[in-house]
Amino acid sequence: MNYPNGKRKSLNQNKFKQTNQGYSNRGMSLESDINVTNTYYLETDQAIIHKKPTPVQIVNVKYPKRSAAVITEAYFKQASTTDYNGIYRNKYIDFEAKETKNKTLFPLANIHEHQIKHMESIIRHGGICFFLIRFSPFEETYYFPAENLFPYWYEKQKDGRKSIPYPKIKENGTIIPFHYQKRVDYLSIIDKLYF
Amino acid sequence: MNYPNGKRKSLNQNKFKQTNQGYSNRGMSLESDINVTNTYYLETDQAIIHKKPTPVQIVNVKYPKRSAAVITEAYFKQASTTDYNGIYRNKYIDFEAKETKNKTLFPLANIHEHQIKHMESIIRHGGICFFLIRFSPFEETYYFPAENLFPYWYEKQKDGRKSIPYPKIKENGTIIPFHYQKRVDYLSIIDKLYF
Repeated sequence: MNYPNGKRKSLNQNKFKQTNQGYSNRGMSLESDINVTNTYYLETDQAIIHKKPTPVQIVNVKYPKRSAAVITEAYFKQASTTDYNGIYRNKYIDFEAKETKNKTLFPLANIHEHQIKHMESIIRHGGICFFLIRFSPFEETYYFPAENLFPYWYEKQKDGRKSIPYPKIKENGTIIPFHYQKRVDYLSIIDKLYF
Repeated sequence: MNYPNGKRKSLNQNKFKQTNQGYSNRGMSLESDINVTNTYYLETDQAIIHKKPTPVQIVNVKYPKRSAAVITEAYFKQASTTDYNGIYRNKYIDFEAKETKNKTLFPLANIHEHQIKHMESIIRHGGICFFLIRFSPFEETYYFPAENLFPYWYEKQKDGRKSIPYPKIKENGTIIPFHYQKRVDYLSIIDKLYF
């Protein structure tokens, strides 16, 4: 990545994400663990999987003389798809990462309908689609197939809130072991499930 | 896409891209034609292909009371991969779109080494990778396989500039017919080349 004018070390974009419903989909540690993992996969030529840039709506830009264009007004936009995609063993890979501080359930409030539609579509077209879910109090990260999440998302609950109980995550997902370089080695789970 | 605070209609990000070397990789008309095409593919459930958000390095954000966070300082970053990716008929699709005003050649100056490395990697892993090249003076758009571009990119030229002569684009690429809804119907070319 280039910093066009090299002026400053930038802040981390994740700092600006707010925690909501007891979890953030940009939990620093899960996201940085995934980044380390993806870099390892890339460098060892196992898979090409990237995080998409944060979508930003640009409103104002200034063009100072002899330096790079400066965006002076912009807003965060909601992503219309998932955060990560790429290719592994000829297969299209697409996933979303979510972290929760909750100890009893995984809340679905931050998963949007257009993301569900996107994931259903990906599966219909032959892609591999899943969630990486971290329960930070337990330091556990699960591979959870998107197909297993849909029923919970569609289920209307009495209080209007949607969630997956922690025991169901354990039952219908697969825990991902931690390795130093492959901190969230989700490809090992894909190998077992699909190959 | 959401405009979090709904305050203003945003400017189009492409306005801020500068034309370089006689062409821009964000040529409004090619990009908007691809967007129309991708939307059509999506709505008719033929393929799921999206443009990645423009990468932006965020430096400063303000949090006004009772309204959305405002990014007050940010810079355009160079993309590390290609602009478009997705899935079609079980296959991973990855491409870059470039428009030139040149009538005799397609300049390669705006194609960066990390993009070439990325595309080589995608092909090695079983993906379909190509360029959509528009010669705007002729209103012609070509599907040009990435494999056919690499030799030109690696070829050292006397003056240090790299390019592909227009006749070679015609010879090693495929012209894409224009349709009202499928303005750049590149899937029809993929069908012929791969299925």
